[in-house]
Amino acid sequence: MKLHGFHRSTASYRVRIALALKGVAHDEAWYVLRNGEQRAPDYLALNPQGLVPALELGEGHLLTQSLAICEYLDELWPEPPLLPGDAFAKARIRALAQVIACDIHPVQNLKILARLKGFGVDDAGVERWAQITIEEGLAAYDTLIASCAGRFSAGDTVTLADLCLVPQLANARRFGVDYATRLPRLAAIEAACFEIEAFASSRPEVQPDAG
Amino acid sequence: MKLHGFHRSTASYRVRIALALKGVAHDEAWYVLRNGEQRAPDYLALNPQGLVPALELGEGHLLTQSLAICEYLDELWPEPPLLPGDAFAKARIRALAQVIACDIHPVQNLKILARLKGFGVDDAGVERWAQITIEEGLAAYDTLIASCAGRFSAGDTVTLADLCLVPQLANARRFGVDYATRLPRLAAIEAACFEIEAFASSRPEVQPDAG
Repeated sequence: MKLHGFHRSTASYRVRIALALKGVAHDEAWYVLRNGEQRAPDYLALNPQGLVPALELGEGHLLTQSLAICEYLDELWPEPPLLPGDAFAKARIRALAQVIACDIHPVQNLKILARLKGFGVDDAGVERWAQITIEEGLAAYDTLIASCAGRFSAGDTVTLADLCLVPQLANARRFGVDYATRLPRLAAIEAACFEIEAFASSRPEVQPDAG
Repeated sequence: MKLHGFHRSTASYRVRIALALKGVAHDEAWYVLRNGEQRAPDYLALNPQGLVPALELGEGHLLTQSLAICEYLDELWPEPPLLPGDAFAKARIRALAQVIACDIHPVQNLKILARLKGFGVDDAGVERWAQITIEEGLAAYDTLIASCAGRFSAGDTVTLADLCLVPQLANARRFGVDYATRLPRLAAIEAACFEIEAFASSRPEVQPDAG
């Protein structure tokens, strides 16, 4: 099993945490997105979409989309469960993950910010776009967890929601979004996550490709 | 159970199909997004995020995010299964759904197109933005199904992927994206879906709020 990713890709970061939490042995390969390495011929032959993360399973089997990959890992390595609880609890965790994976990240990732520039938005505008998207999305996330948060986003154990939150908060810091003041509950969850080795060892800055 | 939605919301459309496929009795309420009805006080009291779709389960339980709602329905009403097959097959279906629900729809929905105008992009530019996003995303979807498509996106039975594809194709038509010529496989899947009553009866134009 080989994870194709990039240290600063928040979607890759989610999958790194899942693999670490479940103790799944794997190889890794890295692609510097800013240099377009994910569109090099060798990688396109493997993944025609030219995106990371992708999880290569062998025998020509490749998985894409970070949430789908995390749920796959959860099905094959059930402990610790990323979606604990009954159907309602699972749906609430998935909804939290999707607030980040659908409503925040794709609207402010590198590709979309570059596209904005192509549509005439200047550098300051592009930064503001990212900030607005992150601020609004994290506020929604905080509202949604009001009824279920404990030490983590949904109760007192780590779930798929936290695997999405922590990478998004790294991105928020990168864009200067002060969530710690405005949404202290999220900062407290982040701190609790970093007490867990699987989160600490998955941080972008400690990856082999961080340079 | 009550579905809060809007006829032209593609995310609401996914949930309508799921409810119809599984024959789940429910009430409906509609919100004209362009008029901001989803941010009226009565609805915000129920769903502080002010988004549709939301599925009200009673006893204060509310589900948000269309994919999370569909998987909830699939867990409680397993027939017909939206995620048939083994762990790999499920992951592939979820990835297809996420290509649309993460990489296309949130980047070109009404809210983001309005935001683009606020950042100085003119009407023609906004339309082009939507077209590029849809064209690129549908091309990726078509590439991904090359190894698994049958009568539908993943084999010969309807899956969660089709519940995302069909609404996105309605949106593509709205923005003048000619997928039928460039991606005929997607048009063939759409035609196969519309032979199923649950898809035909869920079309935006036949909803009570379509006016």
